[in-house]
Amino acid sequence: MPFNIETYRKQKRIVVDKALQQVFRSGSNCPKTLWDSMKYSVFAGGKRLRPILCLASAEAVGLPQKESLRIACALELIHTYSLIHDDLPALDNDDYRRGRKTNHKVFGEAMAILAGDGLQTLAFEWVSNPVGYGPRYRKNLPPVVNELARHAGYPGMVGGQVDDVLAERQKPTLAKVFSIHQRKTGALLASSVRLPALLAGASRPKLDALTDYGWAAGLAFQIVDDILNETGDSKALGKKAGSDRERCKMTYPAAIGLEKSKAEVERLTREALRCLRPFGPQGRPLIELALYMARRTN
Amino acid sequence: MPFNIETYRKQKRIVVDKALQQVFRSGSNCPKTLWDSMKYSVFAGGKRLRPILCLASAEAVGLPQKESLRIACALELIHTYSLIHDDLPALDNDDYRRGRKTNHKVFGEAMAILAGDGLQTLAFEWVSNPVGYGPRYRKNLPPVVNELARHAGYPGMVGGQVDDVLAERQKPTLAKVFSIHQRKTGALLASSVRLPALLAGASRPKLDALTDYGWAAGLAFQIVDDILNETGDSKALGKKAGSDRERCKMTYPAAIGLEKSKAEVERLTREALRCLRPFGPQGRPLIELALYMARRTN
Repeated sequence: MPFNIETYRKQKRIVVDKALQQVFRSGSNCPKTLWDSMKYSVFAGGKRLRPILCLASAEAVGLPQKESLRIACALELIHTYSLIHDDLPALDNDDYRRGRKTNHKVFGEAMAILAGDGLQTLAFEWVSNPVGYGPRYRKNLPPVVNELARHAGYPGMVGGQVDDVLAERQKPTLAKVFSIHQRKTGALLASSVRLPALLAGASRPKLDALTDYGWAAGLAFQIVDDILNETGDSKALGKKAGSDRERCKMTYPAAIGLEKSKAEVERLTREALRCLRPFGPQGRPLIELALYMARRTN
Repeated sequence: MPFNIETYRKQKRIVVDKALQQVFRSGSNCPKTLWDSMKYSVFAGGKRLRPILCLASAEAVGLPQKESLRIACALELIHTYSLIHDDLPALDNDDYRRGRKTNHKVFGEAMAILAGDGLQTLAFEWVSNPVGYGPRYRKNLPPVVNELARHAGYPGMVGGQVDDVLAERQKPTLAKVFSIHQRKTGALLASSVRLPALLAGASRPKLDALTDYGWAAGLAFQIVDDILNETGDSKALGKKAGSDRERCKMTYPAAIGLEKSKAEVERLTREALRCLRPFGPQGRPLIELALYMARRTN
């Protein structure tokens, strides 16, 4: 059966954007500047990779799409808040993101800090609302929320961001860059495929397979990010190419060179695909997403 | 029966501090600087008002104390993260808090932003962990988490903080200061008494009574804060007295004068006490806490 990943991504992006618009439908109870600031960054043209992985994983485990949408939105809200805070002057001090001015350049530093805080809370509010789920899935909500918090927090994303800050200007080693990538981006990417399976009450072998897929494909994605920052085109990336090297960031190319980094992407992608064998045709979207994550040029 | 609120607060503080030490027991999976930074602010000598209100509310509705401790900790973690972010140079730019250097003065701005982020996530991780609750309470977890997120987020605390920032140097009016206080501090204080009742599955009339108590006592607490900032002693407060006036902050004394502010504290406290009548002797700790909140001198 022909499968076009570009069509799939486009279709799922529309679904995700509609769900995110749902999140930002009301806002009557929110200071307007805060609402505008949160919306500015959520609708800034991201790839929606985490939510799309979430929807694809829901297909793989037979979770109805509508049951997975709150998790998908929460993942994107958490990802967006982390970008806003990472871009702040005290952290990466970036003026542009995805070709547009960063949040604090438009709304000021105070509002950017608070918009990030508000997006994190909104993620937990949205994902934990029991009325958003069918009765048979509600009982699985606490572990879903718990894992999202763990993977987004100090053992995961926030911890990785701290390691990344502390490692700047240190000599890059494979062990260090591996650990930073797994925390900073890997944990939330792994959650993107694990959470729908947890909500669905998927079997242990299926959950384990998705976990392995998530970590492998997630790391490959991040190494491709490092490679593109080294070799890519600023315009296609929407941010300055070569900025990692300028800042002496901990990257795969800096630790093991470009060629070995590319080989590692290939190896991880093969590993990710192997994990999906038990899912049969239902795993097809996740397979194609892993291939897309490895081959993308922006 | 004699009841000594000072003894009660001291005893419950010990219980809460022990529970918070439990939260920070491991940390093997956390960058040390981040862990130190989070702990620095959590164990900085706060009053633990929100967790103590939570424990007292648990008593009122007959929820076993151990079932309320995760909520108590989550409330304090959220409160602490909000203080760290409020103190940042881009917001209130405070160097001291409770007589100690603020987080960013010790750990730097980047780490203070990330410690705040990590504490917020940790709050949701801690409160949502199903293994921390007896089987009969687990099913009530999603609405507990959902309300905590809502009251800590844009409709509550974060929204209030934004309004507070935007209102600086505007003419103070009672309507504006009421709205800021209700969001910025009122929402989380109301949650402190509501969440144990939600977890316990308390009856609607009891939940409503606790809600009214929480909003009234919470607002009284915040007006006393305003009054003490105007009239209090810097040393007893652990921060600079008169700083609100210097910054043209929106406060009750600025909006309606000192005498009317004091009368409002009295009125709100009477209202809070009236709400507790249906609870009989089980409501005693909440009564005494409302009186303490109105009469405190620091």
